[in-house]
Amino acid sequence: MDAVELVEIAPRDGLAGGGLALSPVDTIELVECLAAAGLRRIEAASFCPPFSPAAEQVLSALPRLPGLRYGALVPDQAALRQAAAYLDEAQFVLPATEDFAQRQEKRSQAELLAELAEVTKAGLEAGVPVSVGIAVAFGCPFAGEVPRAAVVELAGKVAGTGPAELSLADTLGVATPDQVRAMITEVRAAAPGIRLRCHFHNTRNTGYANAIAAVEAGVRVLDVSAGGFGGCRFAPGAAGNIATEDVVYALERMGIATGVDMIAVADTAGWLAQRLGRPVPALLGRAGMFPPTI
Amino acid sequence: MDAVELVEIAPRDGLAGGGLALSPVDTIELVECLAAAGLRRIEAASFCPPFSPAAEQVLSALPRLPGLRYGALVPDQAALRQAAAYLDEAQFVLPATEDFAQRQEKRSQAELLAELAEVTKAGLEAGVPVSVGIAVAFGCPFAGEVPRAAVVELAGKVAGTGPAELSLADTLGVATPDQVRAMITEVRAAAPGIRLRCHFHNTRNTGYANAIAAVEAGVRVLDVSAGGFGGCRFAPGAAGNIATEDVVYALERMGIATGVDMIAVADTAGWLAQRLGRPVPALLGRAGMFPPTI
Repeated sequence: MDAVELVEIAPRDGLAGGGLALSPVDTIELVECLAAAGLRRIEAASFCPPFSPAAEQVLSALPRLPGLRYGALVPDQAALRQAAAYLDEAQFVLPATEDFAQRQEKRSQAELLAELAEVTKAGLEAGVPVSVGIAVAFGCPFAGEVPRAAVVELAGKVAGTGPAELSLADTLGVATPDQVRAMITEVRAAAPGIRLRCHFHNTRNTGYANAIAAVEAGVRVLDVSAGGFGGCRFAPGAAGNIATEDVVYALERMGIATGVDMIAVADTAGWLAQRLGRPVPALLGRAGMFPPTI
Repeated sequence: MDAVELVEIAPRDGLAGGGLALSPVDTIELVECLAAAGLRRIEAASFCPPFSPAAEQVLSALPRLPGLRYGALVPDQAALRQAAAYLDEAQFVLPATEDFAQRQEKRSQAELLAELAEVTKAGLEAGVPVSVGIAVAFGCPFAGEVPRAAVVELAGKVAGTGPAELSLADTLGVATPDQVRAMITEVRAAAPGIRLRCHFHNTRNTGYANAIAAVEAGVRVLDVSAGGFGGCRFAPGAAGNIATEDVVYALERMGIATGVDMIAVADTAGWLAQRLGRPVPALLGRAGMFPPTI
């Protein structure tokens, strides 16, 4: 247990999920600050309509640095082809329930799986690795409880399309660490060899416990959002994505390297809070480092 | 793993630690609401000066119900004797560092240990079990890092005085789950057979992960504060004690019974927030139950 790769998602999911708006110019500054803080994978934009023009504006202006990878959300193969010139990696989202697929993505799970196969193929052709996120994997705002067996079966199908990474997302923020561990064990059995990634929201104060449980279960890629901005459309007013600086604090205290300067992230979160006119949900910036001399 | 006992501390540590004031009449109403929500151990007051008169006023007015135990903080044997008529249990605090003892308790650790022996003896005579809380067990605002070996040695000495319970407190809110597990393992070895209790603050967003780790390591008593009120004098503005309703949510989702109605606690936290003129730090009241139909 030595290092975890953090995918910074504040510029995309953090803001969009929280219903927050940041200009392309500010988004570029945000991404630059996050890269300077040591983050090496940054999901910077979405190529879902109507965000594609802003995504192109942001991604075309970002500095290219060695080892720094920019990603974006892509809803279909056409978007992936359009985005490929700007991207180092892409993410495609597949809900764990038919209800969520129909109501949020306006497509069936079967249609999304077929699209995924085309997106992955297009990604291979364009040299853009595609990660697949299984949304609402621990609970659905429409279907309620999501049977783990259904997620595991879907993970097996996703693995068959050859994605670069499989992400398990607690979109609703309802999971607990025992569920996270059981899910990881069973998904590993159904999709052996696949690289796992996890995405947690701290909607009911279990998000950090879930992230730590995932890392302790061997997951080496976590989504994080600077300042903890980002919400859950289905729990308005609740806290958002797990915060980069608070995750870095926990992991580094546990002896797990992240390569990220948590104080620099907390400073960036303070700047972002001013831009958004909202307080920072993350706690490290308020509480301060420990030990204070580090 | 079937049930965890929650000690509700909002009326005492939650309010005092957060620098919050509630009238005795409101404190009585708070305790009554918490008892109605299913909490069976409530730390209702402090017999540290200058709080003793308010403590007597509150405790003498509280309804006595079968199975419901009221506790209070006692700083010395005189306070225990004074408080014994009102109490079902008492807590004595012993800091893990000499710096914290001298600066916060104005006594040396040796003096506090000697006092503890007298308090425990007086408690036995009065029929009031005494729990001992080891404060700053995972980090000290004055001494910085606290060597685990020092805490373990102190735990062994405390165990020698025959307390009802030994509580490990992350007063500063800096611990991580791996540290919690290691501490529990080593304290158990140094003080075999002692009943362990844990006290966590969510100052840097590790509090809930620590609580869950402690329960998974076999600890069956946790301090919780309705609404998550309560702060840390050494990290002003940071979040407080772990919240009763959010801990209940996590434990019940993990199949661990608490006997506590989390919605009733969230309602009480809302009432308390109005009285205090502060927002509720806990998240469950904002996010809502899952599944919603429960």
